[in-house]
Amino acid sequence: MNKGQRLWNKAQGLIPGGNMLISKRPNLFAPKYWPTYYKKAKGCFIWDLEGNKFTDMSIMGIGTNVLGYGNDFVDEAVKQAIQNGNMSTLNCPEEVELAEEILGLHPWASMARFARGGGEANALAIRIARAYSGRDKIVFCGYHGWHDWYMSAGSTKGALSQHLFEDLQTKGVPKCLKGSSIPFEWNNIESLEHVINQNKNDVGAVKMEVTRNVIPSQEFLKSVRKICDANDIVLIFDECTSGFRETFGGLHLKYDVSPDLAVYGKALGNGYAISAVIGRSDVMKSAKETFISSTFWTERIGNVAALATLKEMRRLKSWDRITKLGKQIQANWINLASKSGVEIKTGVIPAIASFTFESERALEYKTFLTREFLKKGFLASNLLFISTEHEKLDLSYYFKTLEEIFQKIHLRESGKLKESLIEANEICGETFKRLN
Amino acid sequence: MNKGQRLWNKAQGLIPGGNMLISKRPNLFAPKYWPTYYKKAKGCFIWDLEGNKFTDMSIMGIGTNVLGYGNDFVDEAVKQAIQNGNMSTLNCPEEVELAEEILGLHPWASMARFARGGGEANALAIRIARAYSGRDKIVFCGYHGWHDWYMSAGSTKGALSQHLFEDLQTKGVPKCLKGSSIPFEWNNIESLEHVINQNKNDVGAVKMEVTRNVIPSQEFLKSVRKICDANDIVLIFDECTSGFRETFGGLHLKYDVSPDLAVYGKALGNGYAISAVIGRSDVMKSAKETFISSTFWTERIGNVAALATLKEMRRLKSWDRITKLGKQIQANWINLASKSGVEIKTGVIPAIASFTFESERALEYKTFLTREFLKKGFLASNLLFISTEHEKLDLSYYFKTLEEIFQKIHLRESGKLKESLIEANEICGETFKRLN
Repeated sequence: MNKGQRLWNKAQGLIPGGNMLISKRPNLFAPKYWPTYYKKAKGCFIWDLEGNKFTDMSIMGIGTNVLGYGNDFVDEAVKQAIQNGNMSTLNCPEEVELAEEILGLHPWASMARFARGGGEANALAIRIARAYSGRDKIVFCGYHGWHDWYMSAGSTKGALSQHLFEDLQTKGVPKCLKGSSIPFEWNNIESLEHVINQNKNDVGAVKMEVTRNVIPSQEFLKSVRKICDANDIVLIFDECTSGFRETFGGLHLKYDVSPDLAVYGKALGNGYAISAVIGRSDVMKSAKETFISSTFWTERIGNVAALATLKEMRRLKSWDRITKLGKQIQANWINLASKSGVEIKTGVIPAIASFTFESERALEYKTFLTREFLKKGFLASNLLFISTEHEKLDLSYYFKTLEEIFQKIHLRESGKLKESLIEANEICGETFKRLN
Repeated sequence: MNKGQRLWNKAQGLIPGGNMLISKRPNLFAPKYWPTYYKKAKGCFIWDLEGNKFTDMSIMGIGTNVLGYGNDFVDEAVKQAIQNGNMSTLNCPEEVELAEEILGLHPWASMARFARGGGEANALAIRIARAYSGRDKIVFCGYHGWHDWYMSAGSTKGALSQHLFEDLQTKGVPKCLKGSSIPFEWNNIESLEHVINQNKNDVGAVKMEVTRNVIPSQEFLKSVRKICDANDIVLIFDECTSGFRETFGGLHLKYDVSPDLAVYGKALGNGYAISAVIGRSDVMKSAKETFISSTFWTERIGNVAALATLKEMRRLKSWDRITKLGKQIQANWINLASKSGVEIKTGVIPAIASFTFESERALEYKTFLTREFLKKGFLASNLLFISTEHEKLDLSYYFKTLEEIFQKIHLRESGKLKESLIEANEICGETFKRLN
């Protein structure tokens, strides 16, 4: 066992679940091999506890670091904020500046609130939408965090199975909330209409991601908008994952469909905790008729990091660059897979490059891939959040390794290799539905 | 208008409510005079946007900075964490170390989870308690954040009036949650028994602060523990405000009564965002039967800041020092008030020194006090979160100013002065019930 694995074992006894985020648990990668903890991260490189250096060709902090780890421009701004005091009895002016900046990117929105987590910002948007509409039911599609309003869907069998883990347990959510959050099927306007008709006059908000595992049609998004208008329903786009990947702001800007509220997190502060809810002022003003307030939402780092990140993204046109690179990488994946006789399907947001093995042995292959890449100094899976730092890499060794892996997988899939590529007890678990 | 007031006016149009925390709104201090925003904070000094220097004799970041603003030891550790990467695909080992440290202070607890906000950590504790007990109702006393489980009490008229603002609006909370969180009266064991008997077998948790506006009797706390044991109810102490003020850890350590879960925030990271839920492992393990996960809970700064803060607190015995200073300051307040013929009542946690004017004109006096102190270079109200940095101050000018203010207030209270000390439209609003 390496140091990271020993620490992970120790963590089991001290922290239920072992860490703070399901997506960073080693069982989702290669449980027996994944280094799990880091000492240092810079650019797109990570050093584990033993000092081994890896190139991150995987989740890049689960999408937090579009500008790479330890971006000098952002870090300098943060260090300056620390020098000037991260916290005080008074408010930091940067929160007003950040409101102006993020609203400037979204002409349909005119007010903003900030929090320090994506799920938290989603819960805040739901509170505002319910306060505004006076109606409690939420119709949703996608993943939106750990809070009660969303987890309540878990009380209805199968309701979250297309959105999260198949076998997700959601104990501890008030039973009276059962049925208050109702899923609809993505890109299926009849599914949305059906759910809304069944809950006539009770639906306060439609909450959705702008894309999931298929590219949205503009027509679909426009129809959603129309249905919300016709029924006085607040439309909320959760852009925590999709924001700043293809556009400078929300992915909805690309489709020219405006929500009433939008939620941002992850990439907004390039690895520093900051999230945002923006919206139309008539809806946002409902925040004043309820109580939404938290001490740590007033710390300075989050705002300063977001301001520096937005500035640097604008200078680099990061969204264009990571999209271009993502398209190239996905094309290469497809070429290599086809050349090796392996069937894969790639994802829909190029900067969140991903592929799935079209096989019943998908998890075996994914674990095998990760294990083999670890041997060659890569943190890699079938999901790659691209950063501008990835442009600087020579990826030929990565693709050469992938080709060898695909060839092995082809042997196994075609039956020429009888033995599993990986021990049964070493196979990884399933990740979020959206992401594979 | 000064720069801060102009920015505050501008913020009204961009941010509903103007900022992220009710306790930092200028209307709670001296609406027309409060500088509202800061440029720099260091030790217990704050510079406003115009560069005016103030000594903070008020809320010190609403209790986040026991070691003062910009503590060099904590800041250096944070800067080093930034140097090594705040975020990555892997986990930071410091979260395991922090779990060990905070659990080491609380022998009754053996597992921990971390979040980045106090209200958030409270919601997490409620989820765990409900998952463990299988029961949804919460009996509470005190202030516990903005989340639905707590705000639901606002649907019942008067339920939050002893705990928050009298006129708090709580729109946007699901109506079905009405009656799910039920208040009891602090230090009144019959009140708790009554509520629990009325909701027999439905109560999953008792959530309370260890102290409020009176010192708890050990007997009261022991009775609460006994009632929870007898009814299989999870006892949660919210130590966000009380933690690390009189003891190295939770205030409950002083009373030798252990909860099943305890929640920490505010002082834990000396101004950096970090909060914690600690607890008995059988209860904490229920976190594994539900979904509690958030990207930004994996950032490194919060953990590193908390580790450095705990180390520095231990070295300085900060809890002893701020308690000692708080007692001196409260004693001086009482002396000066009595000398001036003003009636005041002081608070119960010396390191959260406070006093209330025993007068119908309390808000007029409080605003007057703040305005007069601003003229002399102090941010001051009737609430003072003490930091170790306050030891370094010569407080004679502060007390001399206070004596003059008290004398003016006496003239007004005794009727010798007919005119209000402050224009009616300049008077501040009420703060949290707990804090005045």
